[in-house]
Amino acid sequence: MNKFEKVTTGLGEECGVFGAYNMDGGDVASTVYYGLFALQHRGQESCGIAVTDTYGERKVHSKKGVGLVNEVFDAESLESLKGNLGVGHVRYSTAGASKAENAMPLVINYVKGTLAIAHNGNLTNAVELRHELEYTGAIFQTTIDSEVIAYHIARERLKTRKAEDAVKNAMKKIKGAYALVVSSPRKMIGARDPFGLKPLCIGKRDNTWFLASESCAIAAVGGEFVRDVKPGEIVSFTKHGVSSDMSMTISPEKQARCIFEYIYFARMDSVIDEVNVYHSRIIAGKALAKSYPVEADLVVGVPDSGLVAAKGYSEESGIPYGMAFHKNSYVGRTFIKPKQSERESSVKIKLNVIGEVVKGKRIVMVDDSIVRGTTCANIIRMLKSAGATEVHVRISSPPFLYPCYFGTDVPSNEQLIAHSHTTEEIREMIGADSLGYMEIEKLKEMVGDLGYCDACFTGNYPMEVPGKDISHAFD
Amino acid sequence: MNKFEKVTTGLGEECGVFGAYNMDGGDVASTVYYGLFALQHRGQESCGIAVTDTYGERKVHSKKGVGLVNEVFDAESLESLKGNLGVGHVRYSTAGASKAENAMPLVINYVKGTLAIAHNGNLTNAVELRHELEYTGAIFQTTIDSEVIAYHIARERLKTRKAEDAVKNAMKKIKGAYALVVSSPRKMIGARDPFGLKPLCIGKRDNTWFLASESCAIAAVGGEFVRDVKPGEIVSFTKHGVSSDMSMTISPEKQARCIFEYIYFARMDSVIDEVNVYHSRIIAGKALAKSYPVEADLVVGVPDSGLVAAKGYSEESGIPYGMAFHKNSYVGRTFIKPKQSERESSVKIKLNVIGEVVKGKRIVMVDDSIVRGTTCANIIRMLKSAGATEVHVRISSPPFLYPCYFGTDVPSNEQLIAHSHTTEEIREMIGADSLGYMEIEKLKEMVGDLGYCDACFTGNYPMEVPGKDISHAFD
Amino acid sequence: MNKFEKVTTGLGEECGVFGAYNMDGGDVASTVYYGLFALQHRGQESCGIAVTDTYGERKVHSKKGVGLVNEVFDAESLESLKGNLGVGHVRYSTAGASKAENAMPLVINYVKGTLAIAHNGNLTNAVELRHELEYTGAIFQTTIDSEVIAYHIARERLKTRKAEDAVKNAMKKIKGAYALVVSSPRKMIGARDPFGLKPLCIGKRDNTWFLASESCAIAAVGGEFVRDVKPGEIVSFTKHGVSSDMSMTISPEKQARCIFEYIYFARMDSVIDEVNVYHSRIIAGKALAKSYPVEADLVVGVPDSGLVAAKGYSEESGIPYGMAFHKNSYVGRTFIKPKQSERESSVKIKLNVIGEVVKGKRIVMVDDSIVRGTTCANIIRMLKSAGATEVHVRISSPPFLYPCYFGTDVPSNEQLIAHSHTTEEIREMIGADSLGYMEIEKLKEMVGDLGYCDACFTGNYPMEVPGKDISHAFD
Amino acid sequence: MNKFEKVTTGLGEECGVFGAYNMDGGDVASTVYYGLFALQHRGQESCGIAVTDTYGERKVHSKKGVGLVNEVFDAESLESLKGNLGVGHVRYSTAGASKAENAMPLVINYVKGTLAIAHNGNLTNAVELRHELEYTGAIFQTTIDSEVIAYHIARERLKTRKAEDAVKNAMKKIKGAYALVVSSPRKMIGARDPFGLKPLCIGKRDNTWFLASESCAIAAVGGEFVRDVKPGEIVSFTKHGVSSDMSMTISPEKQARCIFEYIYFARMDSVIDEVNVYHSRIIAGKALAKSYPVEADLVVGVPDSGLVAAKGYSEESGIPYGMAFHKNSYVGRTFIKPKQSERESSVKIKLNVIGEVVKGKRIVMVDDSIVRGTTCANIIRMLKSAGATEVHVRISSPPFLYPCYFGTDVPSNEQLIAHSHTTEEIREMIGADSLGYMEIEKLKEMVGDLGYCDACFTGNYPMEVPGKDISHAFD
Repeated sequence: MNKFEKVTTGLGEECGVFGAYNMDGGDVASTVYYGLFALQHRGQESCGIAVTDTYGERKVHSKKGVGLVNEVFDAESLESLKGNLGVGHVRYSTAGASKAENAMPLVINYVKGTLAIAHNGNLTNAVELRHELEYTGAIFQTTIDSEVIAYHIARERLKTRKAEDAVKNAMKKIKGAYALVVSSPRKMIGARDPFGLKPLCIGKRDNTWFLASESCAIAAVGGEFVRDVKPGEIVSFTKHGVSSDMSMTISPEKQARCIFEYIYFARMDSVIDEVNVYHSRIIAGKALAKSYPVEADLVVGVPDSGLVAAKGYSEESGIPYGMAFHKNSYVGRTFIKPKQSERESSVKIKLNVIGEVVKGKRIVMVDDSIVRGTTCANIIRMLKSAGATEVHVRISSPPFLYPCYFGTDVPSNEQLIAHSHTTEEIREMIGADSLGYMEIEKLKEMVGDLGYCDACFTGNYPMEVPGKDISHAFD
Repeated sequence: MNKFEKVTTGLGEECGVFGAYNMDGGDVASTVYYGLFALQHRGQESCGIAVTDTYGERKVHSKKGVGLVNEVFDAESLESLKGNLGVGHVRYSTAGASKAENAMPLVINYVKGTLAIAHNGNLTNAVELRHELEYTGAIFQTTIDSEVIAYHIARERLKTRKAEDAVKNAMKKIKGAYALVVSSPRKMIGARDPFGLKPLCIGKRDNTWFLASESCAIAAVGGEFVRDVKPGEIVSFTKHGVSSDMSMTISPEKQARCIFEYIYFARMDSVIDEVNVYHSRIIAGKALAKSYPVEADLVVGVPDSGLVAAKGYSEESGIPYGMAFHKNSYVGRTFIKPKQSERESSVKIKLNVIGEVVKGKRIVMVDDSIVRGTTCANIIRMLKSAGATEVHVRISSPPFLYPCYFGTDVPSNEQLIAHSHTTEEIREMIGADSLGYMEIEKLKEMVGDLGYCDACFTGNYPMEVPGKDISHAFD
Repeated sequence: MNKFEKVTTGLGEECGVFGAYNMDGGDVASTVYYGLFALQHRGQESCGIAVTDTYGERKVHSKKGVGLVNEVFDAESLESLKGNLGVGHVRYSTAGASKAENAMPLVINYVKGTLAIAHNGNLTNAVELRHELEYTGAIFQTTIDSEVIAYHIARERLKTRKAEDAVKNAMKKIKGAYALVVSSPRKMIGARDPFGLKPLCIGKRDNTWFLASESCAIAAVGGEFVRDVKPGEIVSFTKHGVSSDMSMTISPEKQARCIFEYIYFARMDSVIDEVNVYHSRIIAGKALAKSYPVEADLVVGVPDSGLVAAKGYSEESGIPYGMAFHKNSYVGRTFIKPKQSERESSVKIKLNVIGEVVKGKRIVMVDDSIVRGTTCANIIRMLKSAGATEVHVRISSPPFLYPCYFGTDVPSNEQLIAHSHTTEEIREMIGADSLGYMEIEKLKEMVGDLGYCDACFTGNYPMEVPGKDISHAFD
Repeated sequence: MNKFEKVTTGLGEECGVFGAYNMDGGDVASTVYYGLFALQHRGQESCGIAVTDTYGERKVHSKKGVGLVNEVFDAESLESLKGNLGVGHVRYSTAGASKAENAMPLVINYVKGTLAIAHNGNLTNAVELRHELEYTGAIFQTTIDSEVIAYHIARERLKTRKAEDAVKNAMKKIKGAYALVVSSPRKMIGARDPFGLKPLCIGKRDNTWFLASESCAIAAVGGEFVRDVKPGEIVSFTKHGVSSDMSMTISPEKQARCIFEYIYFARMDSVIDEVNVYHSRIIAGKALAKSYPVEADLVVGVPDSGLVAAKGYSEESGIPYGMAFHKNSYVGRTFIKPKQSERESSVKIKLNVIGEVVKGKRIVMVDDSIVRGTTCANIIRMLKSAGATEVHVRISSPPFLYPCYFGTDVPSNEQLIAHSHTTEEIREMIGADSLGYMEIEKLKEMVGDLGYCDACFTGNYPMEVPGKDISHAFD
């Protein structure tokens, strides 16, 4: 399954966050821009940057908008964002809530000055918290959870001496998944939910500290990866140094990183929680080769995320690895989709088969997931039209069966092909010669000792969940 | 002084508000658009429309943006704003606070649903109220007073049975100038500060009720003017009818309408608080003729607001009225201003003298105000170049000497020519043959029995004022 | 009839032209911008500026676009147009031919370098000339006559020593109405058709020469009016001086200036062919007063072009002059027109009556023309609703009865109310108490000894005409 | 070398062309849109679509603009382009000539109606032809060769019975490289220069015929590849059928396809002149492996065009193939480039190394070309920072030494690193452990029996060339 299809019909990550704090006082807006740019795959809906001059008036200046990072920002707007402490955000969103008001970072004024908050993840008790807040006089101007978090931080801040403690006290109330980057007038604070569902890491370049959803963003700005923020950890950067508060952490065996970051969301050049994404996909491919061996001539991956797992399958099986597809990278946000009648050919607009490569060959085709099955079926049909004699499909994740309450936008059950069909039925529907899904018990091979969340495959949620989709409760 | 100059350098009204509630359920967005369009002179910075479907899901859908009404909205966006209850706003703003976030109406979610608030005016106790709110856990996402008002309404709503009472209780706390149009899920509410500093009136067309800053907006949408909202009055429109709460009104002699609405802000075809704006300007012109008679051949007005007063001067003095200027109406928001070196000619771009009319004539030139004096001087020079033998300047307002705390954007003292110069000095600086300002004691002739505020000329504020400019305290 | 209505339904001028040549070598793009801005009333469809650096590489750099002058150009684009010789154009166009390709000036490369041509007017033999050119190997990339003119100049240039002679020889072939501003690598050339149908005049500021459709544009850029280009004259500006070729002129009694420039097209502050536009409208108003006296209380003009004639009517009749209307100057190109059902109120959006002024009064209402009659009827209805007891309509032009082949966009006969109705029928249809059109024989009073064209009223064309509308023959 | 670098600093293809003719009369604009979209890699500067309704009024309606296909066109504009015969174009251009006027297709009116011309390639005798045309009365409105071609077709059309013959006669005069798609009122005509320098092929879907620069565009619209247009061939599509004129073809051994299409320009899923692009790159990689064997652990390709050659190197050498880079596909036209000081990190924004893959390994890195050397040096540095112990560079083309006169935008000699340095010097400058360029004599292996042009490497031009760069002679 290719990315474009995902954006419009399938799985969506909610966000990417990035923070930069230049202790020497230089402007960071363009650095945040490049950081967000490296995280663009985590959200193409809207984006924003908020900066503070910690040595000046300590007010937040921000620009947010609907569109890609390079659509929302131009040289002039970056130039105008003066400040040495910056927070950035890229947002994915389904149509319903894609309003401009929901773009982040959220910038608020409260009793202690100005705060900018960038947030990745979904709260599971957002409904209760909002009602509670409303009954104590809160008003809401957006439909995003970040506003709930902001209120809690602001209110806790009235009772605490330090912003970090306000964040900690807020974390005691909010439940669910979150990676936060917060800028207060003099501090950059990062925090991660105790289960570690959403990634967050620390980087450094000269005297500038970074926080980022993925290490690739730190590399992109020329920084050095320092370490991951730990699940439940609060890290704080001030001109006096870096401090960490681990009092909210839980035992490693309870920790629950989103396994889908490794399978699909994260960029393959990132390292998350000390696990190399590229490596985990190689392992997945190898596991598939062991579970579902087949006699074939070529292993191919569906761009982009199927490519690495295909490499792993090839390495394990000894079947040569090949490039079977050309992906058109110009398909952008404003691309006009073909009408229904032209739909089938629409796959060829984004993806075309290289006939030379597949002709007369028995193909193992590796992809990361099957959501509705239509795209997969189209690709198989294309391969066969191009002369492939067999197409054996290997999926580097188990079938989706359960909703995610933590910020991944999985279609409802009725649309999930795996919900109502057996693997054999799916195989037939998509026209594959064989079909193998990653086995649940082998997921752990991908990430080693790391505690992870596989609830979307197993229903084993790491915490209590609402029982129904609340992600758009307030839209 | 012509309008363009005002927009960029001089006096600015803060806002215009408009509301429409179609009891039959039809969409009102385009009606609000036309209403705002008629109020465009009250604010060219940003604008917005928020609509609710009172018979449907009762959620607010809004669009706001920086620009003129016909720049921010197109057919598609108006089409998409479905709802029979709409609130609109045009905003004037100085550069500092012209951020997109400050566009109105403010739309909030709170315990009782969704609320849209459009507000014209400035609070005098906004600083105290914001701090008070912050200490009870409020966060602010804009720098406009409307957010303070919204919080108070939301918090009072927790304790009251009716939204109107929440508005009333909020009004007991907020001080200053305000005309409010509020839409709750089922009601449209209008309210005016007890002094009546800012105008607000009621109109009707078939089964649709209107609230508007000026009656011209009601005429523009084909409605009939019903009456003014009284100072301190709260009016409420529901499907059950219209109700009024006058418990916040004060005695007529304390009421203090902004006199500058009549002199300059309002459109000449509006009627505000039963005083016809056109008529009041005729009276002003007549008063000038009585105070400062002069032997001359022609009376001319500086477009647009000087025209009517010139007519009054002509009627009283018997000196013929003439059209001396052509004003280029294509000068828009994005017009590129000439460089300093070309400045003098810049007046000719907006305004040109019709030589035929003024040649060899002794001219009485009527304008509404002198702020810095440069524009006035340029116009006099143009008249003389075109052959006017004498130019006698008559200003239909007294000299500006005191700051306005209620929402009018007067330049700081240093820029006000009248602050540091006598009338005779000013006359010489602008090159006039004589100069007469409206006498303070004659202002009352313009508006009859109406209680009015002339603090910008006299320093007699109708209420306690902060003593310093707080209009951008939170930008 | 107000301007907006004209733009969308009625009469349209085809263009305005402007040229500037700074002999000292300074950039002129911003001067051309301000010049065009003053001519914006002559065309709101598209515009363009083409500049040449006569001391540098002598190539033309241009920018053209659909929209108003201040929409198409910004500071950056003006900055980038480097050159001391500039030609500008504003274009009016009906929908059919409003394509971007048709924006002017037309910039061509030919054997002698680069040429920019701005043109106002319509050729009557364009169809023949195009076919003739095509048969000798010409290709056309636009549907405007200017391309035909360009070809002729270019081809004649092959045979002549001077560009001026090429223009002259081209003029021998083209027939119809034209005012031309042409920039060659080192010269600015102005030319006017022998009948003088379209206006063109010369101005100067320091060492910069100007050519402009109307004198108001010269005033706007701070220049001094020098003189009109004579009908049939070719003027040429080079660093060696100014030269004139009058060999194409015809006898004054055959000359035929468009009378409608004085009635409606031109700005009232312009002087065209030594006749003051303001003055000619005063005369028209006086003539109406003499032809159609009436007992009344007030004379009012429909903004903008009816205002001056109303003043004339008032002066002649002794009936006081009043301001009855407020015109909303924010109605722009992108204004969303009300749906049919809201049409009637649409007039109020652009124009509102000041009730105070007209209530209980017998009104003489002066306008420049009646095209379809609907707008006029609406305005009369508004006046009566506002309390006017009688409305006597006086029109400062005779009824339109014949098509214009020279560049004025008059609706087809079926749409012209005067074509199929008597004056008395029209009076009844528009709801006026009396109606008087300017008498044809009195037109000459407006312009004195000047030869003029009144063919749209009389059918007396100054030259042979095609017999059918060819204005969009190539769209 | 990655694509982005090419666009801004290195090699540029001039254009891509696409035509579609639906004999059943259905609209083709959206099909042309998708076709152009698949050819976007051939030109990102501007684009355009021109359509004709061959069963209707047979006029051309077009839209052109600066930007990518999905930036210039939206649903509304595609909808408005009604017609069953469409011609499209994507244009690459260096800054100098990137003006809107130069966007294609060129649409002209001439004696036989309307013609739209899309053209890929550069003429070598354009200067002479333009002058010749100018001396016979031609005027030029663009600086593109297509206008020269249009004139010749139009003039020849006067003497011929059929449009195809006019094209043929024009081809007798124009020299150089061209692939043309022309739509006349009733015909779609394709033509290729006798040397076949630029590609063009034929496709079909139901009753719709296609012409396209590359077969990938035919696949993208769901069409079937029919055959290549032959060098020198003119193909014509009418409702009566398809006809071919081969009278301009030359002997196969003189034919000279651009070899760089195979190395870099073309999409790897295209087949050009019966040679599979993917296959030719595999062969190139194998040739490099034979010429420059090295002991190493991994072969990696620089995305995108180095990937396939790397695969070929791997297959021949037996050294495993690996994915070493992540390329950020969101880098678009409007991406803000880092300032000079941040330049080095700029490569990481577009390209990041996957440390896991290269760490501790001896790497063979395959790319398609080295232009200035800076990008290559940066990538090598990144690999070594990530732990690669050796980096052996293999380039799938010989060094650039000679200018291209046929439409490929190669930097001037001074910027070409190979022009003034030996291979050993370059190796040292870029920091490679070894460096091998494709051997000139092995190029023929890539394309088999096909006659090709390798003049940029050898100076052996297939025809007489101007001797200096004339590509921007008229800008």
